[in-house]
Amino acid sequence: MRIAVLVGGIGGARFLMGVRRLPAEVTAIVNTADDLTLHGLRVCPDLDSVMYTLGDGADPERGWGRAGESFTVGSELAEYNAEAPWFSLGDKDLATHLVRTRMLDAGYGLTAVTAALCERWKPGVELLPMSDDRVETHVVVSDEDGRRAIHFQEWWVRHRGKIETDRFVFTGAAQAKPAPGVIEALRDADAVLIAPSNPVVSIAPILGVPGIREVLRSTSAPVVGVSPIIAGAPVRGMADRCLEVLGEPVTAQAVGAMFGPRHDGEGVLDAWLVDETDRNTTIDGLTVGSAPLWMSSPEATEAMARAALELVEVTA
Amino acid sequence: MRIAVLVGGIGGARFLMGVRRLPAEVTAIVNTADDLTLHGLRVCPDLDSVMYTLGDGADPERGWGRAGESFTVGSELAEYNAEAPWFSLGDKDLATHLVRTRMLDAGYGLTAVTAALCERWKPGVELLPMSDDRVETHVVVSDEDGRRAIHFQEWWVRHRGKIETDRFVFTGAAQAKPAPGVIEALRDADAVLIAPSNPVVSIAPILGVPGIREVLRSTSAPVVGVSPIIAGAPVRGMADRCLEVLGEPVTAQAVGAMFGPRHDGEGVLDAWLVDETDRNTTIDGLTVGSAPLWMSSPEATEAMARAALELVEVTA
Repeated sequence: MRIAVLVGGIGGARFLMGVRRLPAEVTAIVNTADDLTLHGLRVCPDLDSVMYTLGDGADPERGWGRAGESFTVGSELAEYNAEAPWFSLGDKDLATHLVRTRMLDAGYGLTAVTAALCERWKPGVELLPMSDDRVETHVVVSDEDGRRAIHFQEWWVRHRGKIETDRFVFTGAAQAKPAPGVIEALRDADAVLIAPSNPVVSIAPILGVPGIREVLRSTSAPVVGVSPIIAGAPVRGMADRCLEVLGEPVTAQAVGAMFGPRHDGEGVLDAWLVDETDRNTTIDGLTVGSAPLWMSSPEATEAMARAALELVEVTA
Repeated sequence: MRIAVLVGGIGGARFLMGVRRLPAEVTAIVNTADDLTLHGLRVCPDLDSVMYTLGDGADPERGWGRAGESFTVGSELAEYNAEAPWFSLGDKDLATHLVRTRMLDAGYGLTAVTAALCERWKPGVELLPMSDDRVETHVVVSDEDGRRAIHFQEWWVRHRGKIETDRFVFTGAAQAKPAPGVIEALRDADAVLIAPSNPVVSIAPILGVPGIREVLRSTSAPVVGVSPIIAGAPVRGMADRCLEVLGEPVTAQAVGAMFGPRHDGEGVLDAWLVDETDRNTTIDGLTVGSAPLWMSSPEATEAMARAALELVEVTA
């Protein structure tokens, strides 16, 4: 049995910890629109969060980066007045970026680089970037420095989203191609899951790569999304702030409706799994089910994934 | 008063600690033929040794690299089976290489990059790379893997010179141009000193950049060398092994004769300062003097520099 999952970073990584327990070949299609170039190094926060978490190298307390991390290089870079001191770059993490950047500079695509890094981490699922092409989420903001577009990481990490925000732009998305294997994984899957990741800046960029939305609408596999909103608040992260920028309510209903039904509509879903608290949610054209959605353990998360599959009558 | 000094790495740095105490504008012309690219980063061991030492950031015990250094990134790179695990790359040091590489990639020359790094370190002397062009010392060696050329750092750090060695080749030297300011510094100096650095792999590559030997032979400034050999052994490093490869004896006399007299000869020196132990040294065409050459303190080293200048009747 084959399952393909669209994921962002930390929430997506937690979700995969559960999905990985199912008796299935799992392919994760990971958002790369958070990626940035810092100090000449290509940094892929979502791919790395997933790789470290599934490879048992992530920091469970902090929620991002490597366990037992240190920040010596970053402190030194600050002494040189290097760019972006607000972005904490760990020493262990930096080695990953060095290896990745070197391979990219040598001409390998991000898919091949990710596979090479995974030889060390052995995540137990296939990790595919959404695209080998460069796509970056930029955010149009205004403050005393005027109206301008900043990188999503600057909006997220430096400003914590607390800046007047007009919109998100997926720079490069229109020209991007799905990474090798992405279309095949979605086409040939027995089920497709959308992880409870940030719908606005993790899942939407993946859907923004031409070809991915189309294959989700045409694949014979059922497509089930899992709500990242429980009782009007995000499970983690800043999905509430991102939805606010779009003028959308912070509800499981609104996010499900954003993704929308793929039959009788323009969307990508067959079914939508919400938390038990939100069990009264209804969305035209979608099968809506409920289950406990707190990813408190890999076992609990496996049960979530099974509940999602049951909504479309797939048994793992 | 202006003094120009040709230097290698650690020995050169120690020498400059003394020269810097003289009432003079000091320009150091630093060997860059030890430089290498590792993990995509441009590493300049001699420039950095000088910069860290004069900037009070060097490790005084170990003799190379930064004080309070850690090696987290390097350990992680080894986990990825990255290249050259024999080259210890410190975390603090790595920040320097990141800043340098980024600036080089942006199109700045090594001279400009070095000046930018020195804004932090304030070495108190002007540091000029011998060339902005890439020159690398390669070593022709033979072992069970056959006859081949390896980078000097591999010969030095990995093999400790203990491998059958045919010769040193300064790859790129013939095409290199002196860095901006080098010719002017040597031409306009009141005195030129050659530090007691490795004559074979630190000073010879500088002299191998077309134009530098010529200006040393034509400058109105007197040129004085300081012997890196005391009583038949190098002050530090592996000059003995390097001289052996050239078939030269490990003596203050032999090294002085290698540099040679610039009048009545093909060389670059007016005078040669040896240790008191070697006071009976004579070299045709050169004024030879003696003084204590152990660089035990900046004060002792200042006295050495003054003794060198006195040989050519320059008073600082």
